[in-house]
Amino acid sequence: MKVIVGKDLLYVNAGQAVENRVLFDNNKVAAINLISSPGSGKTALLEKTAELLKGKLKLGVVVGDLYTTRDAERIERAGMTVVQINTEGVCHLTADMVARALRELLLSQLDLLFIENVGNLVCPVSFDLGENAKVALLSVVEGNDKPAKYPGIFREAVATVISKVDLLPHTDFDLPACLAEIQQINGEQQVFVTSARSGQGLSQWCAWLEQLAAGKAGGNHTADNC
Amino acid sequence: MKVIVGKDLLYVNAGQAVENRVLFDNNKVAAINLISSPGSGKTALLEKTAELLKGKLKLGVVVGDLYTTRDAERIERAGMTVVQINTEGVCHLTADMVARALRELLLSQLDLLFIENVGNLVCPVSFDLGENAKVALLSVVEGNDKPAKYPGIFREAVATVISKVDLLPHTDFDLPACLAEIQQINGEQQVFVTSARSGQGLSQWCAWLEQLAAGKAGGNHTADNC
Repeated sequence: MKVIVGKDLLYVNAGQAVENRVLFDNNKVAAINLISSPGSGKTALLEKTAELLKGKLKLGVVVGDLYTTRDAERIERAGMTVVQINTEGVCHLTADMVARALRELLLSQLDLLFIENVGNLVCPVSFDLGENAKVALLSVVEGNDKPAKYPGIFREAVATVISKVDLLPHTDFDLPACLAEIQQINGEQQVFVTSARSGQGLSQWCAWLEQLAAGKAGGNHTADNC
Repeated sequence: MKVIVGKDLLYVNAGQAVENRVLFDNNKVAAINLISSPGSGKTALLEKTAELLKGKLKLGVVVGDLYTTRDAERIERAGMTVVQINTEGVCHLTADMVARALRELLLSQLDLLFIENVGNLVCPVSFDLGENAKVALLSVVEGNDKPAKYPGIFREAVATVISKVDLLPHTDFDLPACLAEIQQINGEQQVFVTSARSGQGLSQWCAWLEQLAAGKAGGNHTADNC
């Protein structure tokens, strides 16, 4: 039996990801690839983040969506610069799609760029977009078995945001078990237990983002002097 | 807000799919892209199909898998020529991966080529492989809501195989409701109600395959003269 390794797609993608990464570095922008299932609250998290970091960091967002521009419209209303990528049914963003979106942004005027990936916990993990950090999002309505079931994203993520914890009393979600599982898969990541509705955990999340942006800018890049 | 349409990947894929299609046509091979969730019984269906069409049609299989060669080994044991594509975590086959696999097969000696896609009901639908027909597979343990939930594949499929119906008495699967739903999404497709274990529905399935292969060969191409 012949076995072929279908790496073509990933090789081509990796080359473009390197170019994106250089672009982020040259412009001292920290780029975050935000990955979760549909409905985990990526857009709500970004809306709240925009509110809390207003005047502190300059934020941009690249939003991947299968067909609609609904998420991008919400993000634009929250005051962030946004470029929408319509993947036309493709289940993940590629580095090339992001490269095209970057041409529509003035990266030199941003501190932090969120790339809101297509809602899908599996496929986006294989495609490097040139980001500085992958962040996983997991809502408490999805079940606490998700990290064990989809370890790929939790292994690669620098941070995980547990979202919608205000709904915790109404679910069977076992938060300590979930946290232990994430810890077991990747003990080095940051975990934020949050609710966009109540505001819980968002100040810690935003402090972490500020730290990430400051690190990227080499300490010389704040909202005041850029 | 800028909106970018991320069609690059699909355009590149479509070009390679055209080349595959020409190759299938020139070699008078009918190619079937078999799409389902993981565990729907694609491999079991192929094993039984090989048994029933032995001496009637010459069958080849291209098997896509995320990491393992387990399915391909089972198919090889069933006596079919097989090439395995290891996608290394990519959630679907691309036309380019299939093109590379085709170089390892003597297409002129085949009547029918199955392309067993990566187990995934969503992502493979967007990627044309140059096949002559997409066939969906749905097992009765998956729930009869799947056609309504994932209409994409049922809209594009020329045929749907309902599998594992021997398990029907042990499930809540509403077969008439499922058939009605498939009919509503795409009234022109063939539906086969099957069990690889009991053999139910497999002779109809194989008769349909023979018809498909005969149509492709223009009536001049049988197992006896090729």
